[in-house]
Amino acid sequence: MTSATHGYLGPAGTFTHQALLTLGDLPGEAVPYPSVPAALHAVRSGEVSAVLVPIENSVEGGVSATLDALTHGDPLQITREVVIPVQFDLYVRPGTELSQVRSVVSHPHAIAQCREWLDAHLPDAVVTEGGSTAAAAVVVADPASGFDAAICAPVAGAAQGLVAAATSIADNASAETRFVLVARPGPLPPRTGADKTTLVAFLRIDRSGALLEILEQFAGRGVNLCRIESRPTRTTLGHYCFSIDAEGHLDDARLAEAVMGLHRVCSEVVFLGSYPRADGASPTVAEGQSDADYTEAAAWLAGLRRPDRS
Amino acid sequence: MTSATHGYLGPAGTFTHQALLTLGDLPGEAVPYPSVPAALHAVRSGEVSAVLVPIENSVEGGVSATLDALTHGDPLQITREVVIPVQFDLYVRPGTELSQVRSVVSHPHAIAQCREWLDAHLPDAVVTEGGSTAAAAVVVADPASGFDAAICAPVAGAAQGLVAAATSIADNASAETRFVLVARPGPLPPRTGADKTTLVAFLRIDRSGALLEILEQFAGRGVNLCRIESRPTRTTLGHYCFSIDAEGHLDDARLAEAVMGLHRVCSEVVFLGSYPRADGASPTVAEGQSDADYTEAAAWLAGLRRPDRS
Amino acid sequence: MTSATHGYLGPAGTFTHQALLTLGDLPGEAVPYPSVPAALHAVRSGEVSAVLVPIENSVEGGVSATLDALTHGDPLQITREVVIPVQFDLYVRPGTELSQVRSVVSHPHAIAQCREWLDAHLPDAVVTEGGSTAAAAVVVADPASGFDAAICAPVAGAAQGLVAAATSIADNASAETRFVLVARPGPLPPRTGADKTTLVAFLRIDRSGALLEILEQFAGRGVNLCRIESRPTRTTLGHYCFSIDAEGHLDDARLAEAVMGLHRVCSEVVFLGSYPRADGASPTVAEGQSDADYTEAAAWLAGLRRPDRS
Amino acid sequence: MTSATHGYLGPAGTFTHQALLTLGDLPGEAVPYPSVPAALHAVRSGEVSAVLVPIENSVEGGVSATLDALTHGDPLQITREVVIPVQFDLYVRPGTELSQVRSVVSHPHAIAQCREWLDAHLPDAVVTEGGSTAAAAVVVADPASGFDAAICAPVAGAAQGLVAAATSIADNASAETRFVLVARPGPLPPRTGADKTTLVAFLRIDRSGALLEILEQFAGRGVNLCRIESRPTRTTLGHYCFSIDAEGHLDDARLAEAVMGLHRVCSEVVFLGSYPRADGASPTVAEGQSDADYTEAAAWLAGLRRPDRS
Repeated sequence: MTSATHGYLGPAGTFTHQALLTLGDLPGEAVPYPSVPAALHAVRSGEVSAVLVPIENSVEGGVSATLDALTHGDPLQITREVVIPVQFDLYVRPGTELSQVRSVVSHPHAIAQCREWLDAHLPDAVVTEGGSTAAAAVVVADPASGFDAAICAPVAGAAQGLVAAATSIADNASAETRFVLVARPGPLPPRTGADKTTLVAFLRIDRSGALLEILEQFAGRGVNLCRIESRPTRTTLGHYCFSIDAEGHLDDARLAEAVMGLHRVCSEVVFLGSYPRADGASPTVAEGQSDADYTEAAAWLAGLRRPDRS
Repeated sequence: MTSATHGYLGPAGTFTHQALLTLGDLPGEAVPYPSVPAALHAVRSGEVSAVLVPIENSVEGGVSATLDALTHGDPLQITREVVIPVQFDLYVRPGTELSQVRSVVSHPHAIAQCREWLDAHLPDAVVTEGGSTAAAAVVVADPASGFDAAICAPVAGAAQGLVAAATSIADNASAETRFVLVARPGPLPPRTGADKTTLVAFLRIDRSGALLEILEQFAGRGVNLCRIESRPTRTTLGHYCFSIDAEGHLDDARLAEAVMGLHRVCSEVVFLGSYPRADGASPTVAEGQSDADYTEAAAWLAGLRRPDRS
Repeated sequence: MTSATHGYLGPAGTFTHQALLTLGDLPGEAVPYPSVPAALHAVRSGEVSAVLVPIENSVEGGVSATLDALTHGDPLQITREVVIPVQFDLYVRPGTELSQVRSVVSHPHAIAQCREWLDAHLPDAVVTEGGSTAAAAVVVADPASGFDAAICAPVAGAAQGLVAAATSIADNASAETRFVLVARPGPLPPRTGADKTTLVAFLRIDRSGALLEILEQFAGRGVNLCRIESRPTRTTLGHYCFSIDAEGHLDDARLAEAVMGLHRVCSEVVFLGSYPRADGASPTVAEGQSDADYTEAAAWLAGLRRPDRS
Repeated sequence: MTSATHGYLGPAGTFTHQALLTLGDLPGEAVPYPSVPAALHAVRSGEVSAVLVPIENSVEGGVSATLDALTHGDPLQITREVVIPVQFDLYVRPGTELSQVRSVVSHPHAIAQCREWLDAHLPDAVVTEGGSTAAAAVVVADPASGFDAAICAPVAGAAQGLVAAATSIADNASAETRFVLVARPGPLPPRTGADKTTLVAFLRIDRSGALLEILEQFAGRGVNLCRIESRPTRTTLGHYCFSIDAEGHLDDARLAEAVMGLHRVCSEVVFLGSYPRADGASPTVAEGQSDADYTEAAAWLAGLRRPDRS
């Protein structure tokens, strides 16, 4: 039932594809999927063993489709992360000058990230939102499309025989996107000492101060958070769950206790994996919060409870 | 320079337009704008005095474009909010049967909210993302467009002479969207006792536990939060600001002190207005946190400091 | 080595003696000790198996001698508590009228608790502090002592052949004192559901906010405190340890985790026992903090860590 | 009505007297009072303008009589503090050898602080508690008293013609005691930048987590505490108030706001003064908590509330 192949958010030529290529050791052929839900469905159904999807962009923020599709549905597990710089160029058909560009097409996030450049250099162009940056290149390659230019990655533009009319047009030169490799639940990747744990915490609705209580589960054990984002629970306005990346591995005692604490005070906790950090940064462990401190405290407690202590 | 007219996120026929019509007392003609940044730019430049834009959807979450465009740029102020239920129908050209639909077009959020219905009733249809639900109706009205159906609001479908092939197709029947009326800074709307205050808090980067510290500014004064969402600061991954709706008005003493506290511990606070809540819900004021309590405490302090006390 | 006898803070006729008599089931003869340190030394050395000492008075506060002698030295364990009302009478030799009383002797705490009565009824009497209320009665019984009256318990006055010149003279009619029965460490008394745990937490000196951190160990697990008192660590001014009574038994999961947390963040924790509450009051267990909640969270964690989960 | 004279906890020769002598600039004759309540009563009644009383000892802890007498009754104000090392000698009549000492008398605190020395060097001596160390020297000076030795300060022993049989006999060589000069309410001593503020906070009885809430009033504004001690409220067991020394002056904005916060969340706050610290240590002011930060935040808030802002 399970195949050895893997997939990614396509089409070929997107930044996700580019990120996938940096994971050199994945076996076999990669399958592009048209959307994040489709990619995660392929993992859940066993069609592929893992898929790479974007989860966060330094300019646009969390990728809602990914956060929600990871949260709702059969359990999934993040096993790796990869972060790559994101840069955009303006691709046109050979022969088109920048000054001739009257219409531009791209993915809404790409458009948003190049907004200032577009306002400065193509103030009169009509800008249309399309499904992906790679699809935009495909559209522009067709002279009958009515579109003069696509904002896309070099790999996508080149693949369609387009040429760059402008390069590095994103407003923020250091933008980067983070991608996660998602599989069905299995053994956790071993602890490396520089790990990250992703989970989703649903607040008890009738509990005021519930978010503070969640943060205190981590803070009280010296666990820092790398990311926290609210997402609606899809019921009514004002009900949220929180998607969280915490420093550390589920095999770290402090994180394990924090996660059990969350489990007790939340209406639901969805665990989405512990995996090595892309940046390799090890956390500073606060005094009293190392594994040795937890082991020692448990031994002390056991001694106090021993019926024959004297 | 300032005109009396106002605008909204267009085109005509979107839910924003529908929400605008519920604000019956706005004078003059409303101008549709093609994007949230364009609408807010029109206010900032003085082209219109106010615009209505969506800020939050119970299914899709915060509208990132709105949150970011409010945060960055010249100061703006929210003066009203309105919440309306969001329901979608599937509109086709007269004569098209549901069973004949092979291609569907709509805004990505609308598609996302109707995903289950689409999977169940049109599993083989090609679904294309377009710029708005109203634009989708325009496209479908053209038989040469190649699209058979649009997911849109009734007002948009009817305006294009389309007919409903299916109604109430959103997966969540109680979905609603919240809109805010945005103007340039001016006098705050008077306190009603059932108010909301919106602001954006930027964390000090070098301060661990900064989010906890922000929440405590509110919790310590008995101020509940209605909404909190992280947004990237647009620099590097892992740096966030928090968009917050807090219960109460800037003229409430507890909220004023909390907001001053934020101002001291954050690197920046963007105040976006105090305005009446759409749901008219009054907060429960915790013991010791009423205006009278603050006034009394200040008088007591003044007495202690009086040079001639005896 | 260990004898079956027990002791108490003497001499006979003190409130401690009176409290001891309410513990009807203690076997053998009770030995009075002249001071709390002497009584606790008798337990530590094995001279007696247990002693009853006062730990807290509703008017005078914690009994420092007891708190300190429990904290410093070989480990001890509280196994029972008893609370009795404390009332004082003014005892004189037969024939002495109240109006003739020119000098009064008693224990400093007794004097303090009758201060208002003394000021009102014997404003001109010389009041001298002695070692105990029972000793005061002994002194007054001797006409050569120069003392006219003793403030003491009825049992002590009667034992010396004195008569009451005034009764119920304490300023606070509902004063009570709490006593604890102290033994060497052994099996904990079984959990009753209405228990109390006593411990002493030493702050890390170099840790600002250390007291807050201690309180959060309890608050974060829904454990209420019945009593908290600072005591100097006997080094320099400004260094404190905290003597704490917490609701619950060491066999309660929430208390056990709180106590392990204390052990990790404090420089030292002295555990002084879990035992039934004298008032039989059961705590309200907060949502998510029952033993079942802890067990369930641990099982959930184990499932997440299982290498073969799928 | 008010005299220029001042007083202290007598008799002459106590450590309080010794501490008083270090306050060289007090005018006129100092009056010794037999007890702390008597001394504070003399201030309240206008008999003297100020008295010096001990408030805290590094070994014995807070002086309950002082804490309670400051808290209950007409308002008082601490205007200065002084800390002196406390050392004890064993004084005997000339001709008595240490080996001949069979009975010792002293104040209970002095006895407690020399307990180890007594156990080691005079294990068989009868030790009796008396009213003060100075009084003990008076008693021993009388050969008919039946007491061989007094534990007291050199000044007291010498004044009675006694000689030291042993010196520096306190178990803790670095013990020190802190004294406060107490007056009726008046202008606060000017802020020096190295100040301390003393107050008593009464918890709302029906408010769980009330102590945590008190600590957060300080912690949330970056105000460190130098001392916190629980005292019974004199009603029933389990009801406490907290005597607190906080870093800073009532004219520091952060302290003022914290104190107003206390006033709101407590059932009562007794302010006991802001005065220069004896050790001259200036606090480290946390980021965002300086007076300038408070002023700036208030100006910012005023700008947001200005009706004509634009």
